[in-house]
Amino acid sequence: MAKNTQFVTHIANRETDFSQWYTDVIMHADMVDYSNVRGCMVIKPYGYAIWENIQKYLDERFKETGHENAYFPIFIPESLLQKEVDHVEGFAPEVAWVTHAGSEELTERLCVRPTSETIICSMYAKWLKSYRDLPYLYNQWANVVRWEKTTRPFLRTSEFLWQEGHTLHETHEEAMEETLKMLGVYADLAEKVMAIPVIKGQKSENERFAGAEATYTMEALMHDGKALQMGTSHDLGQHFSKVYDIEYSDRNGELQNPYQTSWGVSTRLIGGLIMVHGDERGLKLPPRIAPVQAVIVPIAANKEGVLDKAIELYNSLKAQGIKVKLDDRDTVSPGFKFNEWELKGVPVRIEIGPKDIEKGSVVYARRDDFSKGEIKMDETTKRIPELLDEIQDNMFNQALEHREAHTVDATDFETFTGHIESGSGFVRAMWCGCGECEEEIKEKTGATTRCAPFEQKQLSDVCVHCGKPAKKMMYFAKAY
Amino acid sequence: MAKNTQFVTHIANRETDFSQWYTDVIMHADMVDYSNVRGCMVIKPYGYAIWENIQKYLDERFKETGHENAYFPIFIPESLLQKEVDHVEGFAPEVAWVTHAGSEELTERLCVRPTSETIICSMYAKWLKSYRDLPYLYNQWANVVRWEKTTRPFLRTSEFLWQEGHTLHETHEEAMEETLKMLGVYADLAEKVMAIPVIKGQKSENERFAGAEATYTMEALMHDGKALQMGTSHDLGQHFSKVYDIEYSDRNGELQNPYQTSWGVSTRLIGGLIMVHGDERGLKLPPRIAPVQAVIVPIAANKEGVLDKAIELYNSLKAQGIKVKLDDRDTVSPGFKFNEWELKGVPVRIEIGPKDIEKGSVVYARRDDFSKGEIKMDETTKRIPELLDEIQDNMFNQALEHREAHTVDATDFETFTGHIESGSGFVRAMWCGCGECEEEIKEKTGATTRCAPFEQKQLSDVCVHCGKPAKKMMYFAKAY
Repeated sequence: MAKNTQFVTHIANRETDFSQWYTDVIMHADMVDYSNVRGCMVIKPYGYAIWENIQKYLDERFKETGHENAYFPIFIPESLLQKEVDHVEGFAPEVAWVTHAGSEELTERLCVRPTSETIICSMYAKWLKSYRDLPYLYNQWANVVRWEKTTRPFLRTSEFLWQEGHTLHETHEEAMEETLKMLGVYADLAEKVMAIPVIKGQKSENERFAGAEATYTMEALMHDGKALQMGTSHDLGQHFSKVYDIEYSDRNGELQNPYQTSWGVSTRLIGGLIMVHGDERGLKLPPRIAPVQAVIVPIAANKEGVLDKAIELYNSLKAQGIKVKLDDRDTVSPGFKFNEWELKGVPVRIEIGPKDIEKGSVVYARRDDFSKGEIKMDETTKRIPELLDEIQDNMFNQALEHREAHTVDATDFETFTGHIESGSGFVRAMWCGCGECEEEIKEKTGATTRCAPFEQKQLSDVCVHCGKPAKKMMYFAKAY
Repeated sequence: MAKNTQFVTHIANRETDFSQWYTDVIMHADMVDYSNVRGCMVIKPYGYAIWENIQKYLDERFKETGHENAYFPIFIPESLLQKEVDHVEGFAPEVAWVTHAGSEELTERLCVRPTSETIICSMYAKWLKSYRDLPYLYNQWANVVRWEKTTRPFLRTSEFLWQEGHTLHETHEEAMEETLKMLGVYADLAEKVMAIPVIKGQKSENERFAGAEATYTMEALMHDGKALQMGTSHDLGQHFSKVYDIEYSDRNGELQNPYQTSWGVSTRLIGGLIMVHGDERGLKLPPRIAPVQAVIVPIAANKEGVLDKAIELYNSLKAQGIKVKLDDRDTVSPGFKFNEWELKGVPVRIEIGPKDIEKGSVVYARRDDFSKGEIKMDETTKRIPELLDEIQDNMFNQALEHREAHTVDATDFETFTGHIESGSGFVRAMWCGCGECEEEIKEKTGATTRCAPFEQKQLSDVCVHCGKPAKKMMYFAKAY
């Protein structure tokens, strides 16, 4: 049979049509597909494997920091959802309602969880007795549903997968410590595993979680200059614990409401991964999150010894814990394979053919900078892991450079507007702290406050928009 | 502060009120709780940790056998569910229907998945092109909803957690091989990890999965003599692939429908674990599934050196990969701790006090047979893992003995009825293979066919009930 040598991808131009480029990459890299259900996606194995890597990293970190997993029902009775006023206002417009079971109408409608504070609070109220029981450090891996008008795979879908941590504490200080600790875990995931630099900071009142006292976030800049909220951690204060009657006897025997946190990241992170690192050839994955870290492509595999050497290399890399794949398909050409694995973003390709075997070496090609080189066969187990580390670091640095190059400080509204309208990234600017001013900025420019970064600078004394005294420096950007 | 020495459990008598005993054990061992939503349970950390151990074992085995994980939407449009007639008849009475999103009524009702054959088939129909793409070996970890009239935590709940494998194959032989291979993986989980002996066999036509060509099952006997279906694997033939238009070009370029399998186990397994092994003191967990395999309880922990030695032992066992817990609470007495960890089913308790330290040894107490003994301190890292293996084996053997002692062969209907009515286990008997006869047996005795075991014996030539020529030997029992 003739080999298939033509690899046709049809990926739109990343610079001129980022939105179509995104869709093309996720579809051609076989990460996701649209389903028959409006706004719901199917996460295909290659996409899901990335989610599994995210889960593995986070789950270990959660457990190291003393958390345990639990599971709460997907359904929330309408009356329970409605107890916390801000919360229900925030979520009611986008919840899916179950009204019937079999052929019977339910006496009370059930909402499919958009998040689980309410159902979890109702259980915590039942369980918590004494200060000795605190802290509660629980996490849940789950699917949630938020009915969206316009959807995009990974970034905004009616159903998505996430984890949600829900903790209770004796003091506000402890709750704050927890909130920031988990934001730190998220930032480690983003920066150390996904090679995505993030800005950590606090959300404005308008942008915070419905029912929270304060929301902390990590924000990243995508290649097209838009921001993506990558994960949030909420200081819920006693808002929910008061409304849902969560009480305990304190050290003096008096009834108190505990302080509460919640925090979550979702499959949305995968969207960020694609939009930060992807390029004109498709997906580009940092080694620490890649389902396949290195792919071995035998050249002239029918020549004696080639496949044997490839298998030998495969086994030695696998034994080292490297996620390696041997592409021994005989129905497609090496060139076809090169293109396909580039599209799928595999960090390192290793070519091995008769000439390489003669020389006692292999050829490698890096996905991050397309550089190629040779490695002596007996140095592969040393060099390949080094290469993966180099690629990981380089990808983080590239993303950081891109962000720095697309971040400006604005002390006047013209500079602010100019930068936002050119669609080229973050604006750092002073802000008065007023929600109406924030709304006006959004209406005029399309930019929202992303966060008040923990690292503050006094760029000027007045708000970039209204000129009133400035409260803090904010990051602004158009956002997904 | 006075230590709490009183440990009050109120566990009902296992022999006289098994149902209440079950509820008491799961509640007091802190595995699960009832939620505000009818029929939905909350899986608490101690119960969820068992599920995580099940997941870990199975996920590794699935991947070893070439499967990949994916994720499909939780919602299934009504029209899609209704395509396969047997399937919709089987599931429609118990599905939850989403009719509204936000304040809008949906144009088509969405069912919350009771199982995912239909939605997955609709995607497979879109994806599959050529015989080269086969086999499809995908699995999904997910929650499913089946609205139940009467519920019991873990055993029968309106929402439960499970995995569902969905595969496509070129030939019926390959599909059959897959079906039985995965049943074998499940049986390994049951027998080697959960210490539960199972009977593997084929379900009768009446009892098989709605839409399947054949359903294979593993059945276990609970302590009260009732059977529990622990996991099923279905040969779906071409039923779904024809109805959902899944087609591919075969090796001759002709369109064919692939052969399909599906297989699943759920959180129900945890119910089985409790009902097979639990005793009058509560939960009893086999070491390979236990969230905590060994608990160290310091005696007179305030005496110099005791806690240090306990911590030393904890660290050395932990370094060995043993799931060990050091119970250093100073608010409760050692006796309280003994009772609590017995209730929670921890396989080995290790006591360490001043006298033990003097002797250079520790005291161990086995949960499975309550035997106690001493281990020299410098032999703990050798002896504790051995003990865990011994406990694992002993628990399997005890469960096997119990099953064998509660299984009878019946060649006449009086013996059959007598054994079933005494509520004491499995009956092996010959059956004519007729569904009406099976229904009559069920009406008269409450027993259902559990399976035609792979290991057949010709007990007699005629059906134990109707006297017509016998087709095969079946296991019968009352079941959960």
